[in-house]
Amino acid sequence: MPLLNESASGVYVIAATPFSAIGELDLQSADRMVDFYLERGADGLTLLGLMGEAPKLTAEESIAFVDRIVRRVNGHGQIIVGVSSPGFASMKSLTASAMDAGAAGVMVAAPGHLRTDDQIYSYFENVAEALGPTPFALQDYPLASGVQIAPNVILRLAAALPTFVMLKHEDWPGLAKISALRAANKQGARRLSILTGNGGLFLPEELARGADGAMTGFAYPEMMVGVVRAHRAGDEERARDIFDAYLPLARYEQQQGIGLAARKYILARRGAIASPALRKPGPTLSPADIADVERLIARLEKRLREIGDG
Amino acid sequence: MPLLNESASGVYVIAATPFSAIGELDLQSADRMVDFYLERGADGLTLLGLMGEAPKLTAEESIAFVDRIVRRVNGHGQIIVGVSSPGFASMKSLTASAMDAGAAGVMVAAPGHLRTDDQIYSYFENVAEALGPTPFALQDYPLASGVQIAPNVILRLAAALPTFVMLKHEDWPGLAKISALRAANKQGARRLSILTGNGGLFLPEELARGADGAMTGFAYPEMMVGVVRAHRAGDEERARDIFDAYLPLARYEQQQGIGLAARKYILARRGAIASPALRKPGPTLSPADIADVERLIARLEKRLREIGDG
Amino acid sequence: MPLLNESASGVYVIAATPFSAIGELDLQSADRMVDFYLERGADGLTLLGLMGEAPKLTAEESIAFVDRIVRRVNGHGQIIVGVSSPGFASMKSLTASAMDAGAAGVMVAAPGHLRTDDQIYSYFENVAEALGPTPFALQDYPLASGVQIAPNVILRLAAALPTFVMLKHEDWPGLAKISALRAANKQGARRLSILTGNGGLFLPEELARGADGAMTGFAYPEMMVGVVRAHRAGDEERARDIFDAYLPLARYEQQQGIGLAARKYILARRGAIASPALRKPGPTLSPADIADVERLIARLEKRLREIGDG
Amino acid sequence: MPLLNESASGVYVIAATPFSAIGELDLQSADRMVDFYLERGADGLTLLGLMGEAPKLTAEESIAFVDRIVRRVNGHGQIIVGVSSPGFASMKSLTASAMDAGAAGVMVAAPGHLRTDDQIYSYFENVAEALGPTPFALQDYPLASGVQIAPNVILRLAAALPTFVMLKHEDWPGLAKISALRAANKQGARRLSILTGNGGLFLPEELARGADGAMTGFAYPEMMVGVVRAHRAGDEERARDIFDAYLPLARYEQQQGIGLAARKYILARRGAIASPALRKPGPTLSPADIADVERLIARLEKRLREIGDG
Repeated sequence: MPLLNESASGVYVIAATPFSAIGELDLQSADRMVDFYLERGADGLTLLGLMGEAPKLTAEESIAFVDRIVRRVNGHGQIIVGVSSPGFASMKSLTASAMDAGAAGVMVAAPGHLRTDDQIYSYFENVAEALGPTPFALQDYPLASGVQIAPNVILRLAAALPTFVMLKHEDWPGLAKISALRAANKQGARRLSILTGNGGLFLPEELARGADGAMTGFAYPEMMVGVVRAHRAGDEERARDIFDAYLPLARYEQQQGIGLAARKYILARRGAIASPALRKPGPTLSPADIADVERLIARLEKRLREIGDG
Repeated sequence: MPLLNESASGVYVIAATPFSAIGELDLQSADRMVDFYLERGADGLTLLGLMGEAPKLTAEESIAFVDRIVRRVNGHGQIIVGVSSPGFASMKSLTASAMDAGAAGVMVAAPGHLRTDDQIYSYFENVAEALGPTPFALQDYPLASGVQIAPNVILRLAAALPTFVMLKHEDWPGLAKISALRAANKQGARRLSILTGNGGLFLPEELARGADGAMTGFAYPEMMVGVVRAHRAGDEERARDIFDAYLPLARYEQQQGIGLAARKYILARRGAIASPALRKPGPTLSPADIADVERLIARLEKRLREIGDG
Repeated sequence: MPLLNESASGVYVIAATPFSAIGELDLQSADRMVDFYLERGADGLTLLGLMGEAPKLTAEESIAFVDRIVRRVNGHGQIIVGVSSPGFASMKSLTASAMDAGAAGVMVAAPGHLRTDDQIYSYFENVAEALGPTPFALQDYPLASGVQIAPNVILRLAAALPTFVMLKHEDWPGLAKISALRAANKQGARRLSILTGNGGLFLPEELARGADGAMTGFAYPEMMVGVVRAHRAGDEERARDIFDAYLPLARYEQQQGIGLAARKYILARRGAIASPALRKPGPTLSPADIADVERLIARLEKRLREIGDG
Repeated sequence: MPLLNESASGVYVIAATPFSAIGELDLQSADRMVDFYLERGADGLTLLGLMGEAPKLTAEESIAFVDRIVRRVNGHGQIIVGVSSPGFASMKSLTASAMDAGAAGVMVAAPGHLRTDDQIYSYFENVAEALGPTPFALQDYPLASGVQIAPNVILRLAAALPTFVMLKHEDWPGLAKISALRAANKQGARRLSILTGNGGLFLPEELARGADGAMTGFAYPEMMVGVVRAHRAGDEERARDIFDAYLPLARYEQQQGIGLAARKYILARRGAIASPALRKPGPTLSPADIADVERLIARLEKRLREIGDG
């Protein structure tokens, strides 16, 4: 598999981390989940993301999980591994393990104490030095980190660091940031791949501004795939029809707190993983939450039939 | 007009603050906007809310605005006035002016430095003492304030403070909090009115959990009114059909930063106010933003016709 | 009295706001306090500071307080008035009142939502526009605001805004920032007055780096005055002897929470104000706190005698 | 060595992590540093603390460091190991390694997302479950974490969790919290060991309120040892004389940012470690910083001679 580079595009699904009902890492479900994502058109997978259950894994489990996923994907997509760490020594060590296992690149978020432009710039300069030749995505997620990265800081980093190849854009929704970066690209600034997160909640607008695709974990990857494909085909109205059909459920899944539990509930319901369990401690869905999700799925399926996508 | 009390329900629109293109408070538009909201079924209006442009007004302008709105409403709805202040002296002074002008009650948010349960409890105990007999809504908005208020703190406050009559619920989305409060009500805890915010993005689920209505400023108040009415009539599917039609636009308007500019753009486009201008400093919509909004409105209008609500 | 300018130096005391035991603004104590500060060598007073009790005043009380102080000072020092406000309309209105009353300038802190360099720059550009010809100090207090202002942002603002004349430096302790600014001054950058806060806890080092004096409210202004004068006289060891004698008490007074209560306790004990009361809600000293303060004062007085300053 | 329990008292030094000039973990200096701390009267050592350089170590280095220190201490003091982790799996794994190596207990800080009393309570309930029989200290450090833990939450945890044996108190300065906890102990609440941090800046007052000693890393552990011993001997004035002599330097070392660099500079200067280097990325002292430290040391030595402690 080639390394990650600036031309990455399409849908990179943020993969769930499957556990058994008693909290053991479920590698058989990991296989099933890979098949589920790839069959629905994923171009890549992102593992051990910041907001998932990665921090609940031991270092050994993390490596075992990456290894299993890479083998199952077997070259049918790129693997990006989240390696954000409180220190560079462990970031280097995680990166080495991930790349050895066959990942295409890694992803690093800004730690929450960064404030000034120069602090942010220096941090990622140090990241690039620590990672050596490994290409990386910068995860820009102010809602979670509190760190706001100005477009010109991203452009300075892009100009200085050849291994910085992708922006995981999750600045809620930050449409103006995408526009600013793409305008700079037209003026000759080095062009990064931009994949967008936020549960896909702004995907049509993000693509229209110049994003190259989505990187998010919504339990219906066919939404992101469908929207990206319709957008590429120039059929904006079709892209919106698909998007709008899924939006009520995507919105529900994007809740702080129980959103991840809802996502795993749906993945289990769809057969992608064996158990919806989160490893403890973590929220569980109440009967009322489950009723919400079931109603949203029923309405989604009805709406998909109406727009001829069921 | 009677004072605000625990039986408040329906739709209280967070009113915009209209300015002329050169930034002057536009009281003629205030009249027009009142008519616009009332004609679309609003049960009340909330003025000078935390996230609007209230901080841009001088104290004199604030009073003039409240006064004008109350007169135009002329008893056809209740007025709630945001009086959150860094100190209790100015909170008291604002409250006195608002109640003199004819408001039905006031609204107070938790200041960002509160952390422990007891700190939050004491703060609102002091609020109630400062406000005297004036009924108040507690604005619970963790995403903006960073303050998280546990259900049991709300219940303790409700038990102790008779003038605490309403929870403006904006805990994203905090469905479990509504369920917990309503379950406590069934066990005999004093029942508050709960109106929900978050741009209306979770309104159907919030109503199903026991919310009494919405308090938000989405530029199509008929969405909230329609959803609440269908819910009351027991027609959940109809409520959802209406909600889903507006959701793509409501989501866009809920963006941090330019969301308010989008809201005023739509209000001006619909004739509710003369100018979409925000008072400086404030964001303006780019041509790309306007194109986004126009596309969303066109799709909304088409969808409303499909579901027979156009 | 001339307006505030870049040559301001010495000790500007952050004045307390005196209240009676039942919480009324005590203007007679305001007079007494002015005399107390001036007799101990203050070069100026700063009123309505961010961390004092300014937010507990109504707008009318604020103006009355500023007016009283200015009259009592009667040209024997400059008055700076804190006008930080959530909006520019009220900042302008406060500034107009303060300057009408006879203030020499105003002070503005960075609001907590600012993050990127450009956001901070734009905010103060807007401040300068709103304030018109009024000279202002920028209060740089990251510990309270969460906003970190890089030296180059301060230099850009200094170059662009002639009315930006003073940095109230409270970046804990931010010695490197003072060094960086003064090094830039040597390269030709416009020189601002730098007065330092932090309860005076780093005053000797700050002066050595190029600060022009102190702006803080420690209840023994003679400490700041003595340190500044010894420093100017080139007697660093004497400056340190004085500083070290007061440090145990200055440290105690710099506590979050009860520090201000300790400060007012000492001011009342020294006869500068009639009552140590904070306006409600506010902390009160416990008997153990008072015992701490009394012990520290006793030791201070003993130590001052030892170093020949009693 | 016995396990950590509620009777722990005295001085537990937060140990530095020594690196060579090129950033390699320096285990020979670790030995020397252990001797340095023990010779100056330390009762225990705390390793891999939150604010040190622990996050810069790989997992392997962390274990090697703990192992080396335990062997060198050789039963002449207790070792507490910081095991705060984003997930419980890695916390368990770190704890197992530390206890296997011979640690007496572990220390866990509250993660920054905790807000309500019940969230904090649940978190440490989960910690205790994850740690099993291992005794732990709760690190209460609101200035770094943003989490405020009310005294009653600590008391609830103490009542419910027998393995919760120590409070590492770093609530700046939180004297009232110590008083509240000790008052509750008098009413029969289970008594925890309380050791205080904050660079020792409030040690005399903390001991007077009922703290059992200090846990901090000031480069002159003889300050903490001297203050604790004089306090135990009932000689409060002597305790203060010692404390006041060191305070100017302790204050300087407590700076955010360069404080740790100053600490390592002094440790190296005193022969406790070979190199003052921080592992990259980290701040370095400027010539002006070094001049500050040297002046403070010269004045300290002079003052110690004056009070007969040199």
